[in-house]
Amino acid sequence: MASSSAPSSAASTAETFPAGTPAAAQIFTTVLSQGPLTRLELARRAGLSAAAVTKAVRPLIEAGYLVEDADTEARPALGRPANLVRVDGGRALFLGLKLTGDQVFGVLTDLRCRTLLARHAPLSDRVPKAVLASTAEMVRELLTEADGYGVRVVGLGIAVSGDVDRAEGVVRYSPFLEWREVPLAELATAVTGLPATVDNDVRALTVAEQWFGAGVGLSDFAVVTVGAGVGCGLVVHGEVVAGAHGVAGEIGHVTVDPNGPPCHCGNRGCVEAIAADPAILARIREAGGAEADSIDEAVALARAGDAHAREAYSRAGEAIGRGIATVANLLGPERVVISGEGLAAYDLFADQIRSAFAAAAFGSAARCELETRPLPFEEWARGAAATAIQSFITEPNRP
Amino acid sequence: MASSSAPSSAASTAETFPAGTPAAAQIFTTVLSQGPLTRLELARRAGLSAAAVTKAVRPLIEAGYLVEDADTEARPALGRPANLVRVDGGRALFLGLKLTGDQVFGVLTDLRCRTLLARHAPLSDRVPKAVLASTAEMVRELLTEADGYGVRVVGLGIAVSGDVDRAEGVVRYSPFLEWREVPLAELATAVTGLPATVDNDVRALTVAEQWFGAGVGLSDFAVVTVGAGVGCGLVVHGEVVAGAHGVAGEIGHVTVDPNGPPCHCGNRGCVEAIAADPAILARIREAGGAEADSIDEAVALARAGDAHAREAYSRAGEAIGRGIATVANLLGPERVVISGEGLAAYDLFADQIRSAFAAAAFGSAARCELETRPLPFEEWARGAAATAIQSFITEPNRP
Ligand SMILES: [Zn+2]
Ligand SMILES: [Zn+2]
Repeated sequence: MASSSAPSSAASTAETFPAGTPAAAQIFTTVLSQGPLTRLELARRAGLSAAAVTKAVRPLIEAGYLVEDADTEARPALGRPANLVRVDGGRALFLGLKLTGDQVFGVLTDLRCRTLLARHAPLSDRVPKAVLASTAEMVRELLTEADGYGVRVVGLGIAVSGDVDRAEGVVRYSPFLEWREVPLAELATAVTGLPATVDNDVRALTVAEQWFGAGVGLSDFAVVTVGAGVGCGLVVHGEVVAGAHGVAGEIGHVTVDPNGPPCHCGNRGCVEAIAADPAILARIREAGGAEADSIDEAVALARAGDAHAREAYSRAGEAIGRGIATVANLLGPERVVISGEGLAAYDLFADQIRSAFAAAAFGSAARCELETRPLPFEEWARGAAATAIQSFITEPNRP
Repeated sequence: MASSSAPSSAASTAETFPAGTPAAAQIFTTVLSQGPLTRLELARRAGLSAAAVTKAVRPLIEAGYLVEDADTEARPALGRPANLVRVDGGRALFLGLKLTGDQVFGVLTDLRCRTLLARHAPLSDRVPKAVLASTAEMVRELLTEADGYGVRVVGLGIAVSGDVDRAEGVVRYSPFLEWREVPLAELATAVTGLPATVDNDVRALTVAEQWFGAGVGLSDFAVVTVGAGVGCGLVVHGEVVAGAHGVAGEIGHVTVDPNGPPCHCGNRGCVEAIAADPAILARIREAGGAEADSIDEAVALARAGDAHAREAYSRAGEAIGRGIATVANLLGPERVVISGEGLAAYDLFADQIRSAFAAAAFGSAARCELETRPLPFEEWARGAAATAIQSFITEPNRP
């Protein structure tokens, strides 16, 4: 079972997406995110002419990626119903994996990033060789299940926390896995036979929100994740911010209090040093409160009214709210989606997040909407699948 | 002299820029910012085909905005020299104005945003009517001078600090002028006869750096201005960030110390509450140091070795460095340009800016270059002219 040969005939020949031009990719993406749409509305939203839409849509319909249906809702007042263009989600399948320090989460999705099934497995070891073996095993299992759909799996996305160079497919530095400069995309393709996209996990999640979630139709929004760490994915001018040197969205290291608790980055009082799970546990311990060995215990203590646990959550909420206000003051997003495992405790710090945000947001930056979305690890894996879908559409000629 | 009729025949008929498509505007902008260029290099940098370049360049050459010259440097090793495409800077003239609370600064520039002459005048009063009269007077004076060039002035840019809605041409809120909801673009066009672009002053300066200065060729950079306030213009994915609700780049309100001095925004310890000119004067006063009534006196004290003045500058530098690190950690820019009137004191806090930046920048975000540029008020006016040039090129059909 630990063989590293290409595991399935389903992936043995590459499938190419017929989007020859950036305009075609853009039109397909618009239908994918916002469809079904009439051709007229599609042209308007993509900012292109009707002729350009017709030219781009034809090969996509011929290849089965788009379908055009009569609008089935009866609309007598509008005369003859306009046809609607939509993506055939069943035309292609994708795999998404999220690697944590001790587990691998995997999903099989369709082209519309709808999760068809989800799996998870422990990681026996963090060295690249062991992680690749677990990855290959998970992929093999998901491909076997995918056979039942009779549709080819055409891409694999892998999401890893840390500094990831998506363009090069390299994990530059992952603290959880203790990796440096691992060419994960190439290695994953070698053991699975699938084109692979590797991205930072928060950015992958942000792509999923941008294309299929709370960010659809917004040119400027942010995703803030709270849990073992505090992360942030930013979309500015309709594109995910990657940073010129691979670092971006480090809301976890926005300073809240220069005299606050030490952070692993070398500074004091960063958002992450106050609001991440280990910081909350440390705060309860230092305050001399009841014993809490896990974040679940800390949540239970706080819900039971323990003053120290409640205070730790209150401080965490204030730090998160200030961090979000900093993002809003610099970028003026339309919406910030708050998510992550830590959201399970949202009732314990929601008020503090909102009030600290309102106090620190400058002028009309306070008009930014704060929205919460629960997010199990399978959703991070779905984010990875979204990056694979994105690569499939926008880089049709890659190896 | 205070008449509000259109002052010059030079502006009495609109001149239209022959850029019918976004691609043509993009090609012209590339030559304007990065030229002279060969057609081949132009196609490469604009990411367009040679055919698209040929199609876009032709009407621009016919209208005299672009010229194509033989490369005059002898390059025998390269065979026949390639022709170079460049912008004829003398083809059109622009005016740029910067309004402060008590003065108006004006420049006349060519199409390449080279300043041909600069003027300034006091503002007698801050009410819109008085400011418009001063604006009209300044424009009249500059148009008279422009007559000597024999080329038409085709646009006016006005830069104002505060919350400015460029798309609508409205100053939403300017604390220095004490204005709310003033439709300045429309009013300025009425009194000058020129198409007018109104923008926030820091964003205008950022446009000038992006097209004609330290940001040329960079897709992600920031301009940080230090002086009466602390401001920031951001370019992400090649475009200036405006914010969904008009607020963006508010580095002045990044929190450095939640127990620090009060800020006019209602919080404590913002960068601006520590590093802006009034904050530096207040700090020297509170520390019980020698009397400093103006920032020039504060600088003189610090240069003479006064311990309180030096400490105030040291704290200011640390706050600015932390603010810049926050921008770098969130956006990962390639370069940050530090500028503004406050830069005259750069020797007093340069070390603190750099060391605080280095300490607070996360991982490879520290690779962002910090660059300093002196910036007299005339340069802010030139920024306003840059916005007028941008509008002329990208919005050829506006009224
Ligand atoms: Zn930190
Ligand atoms: Zn403030």
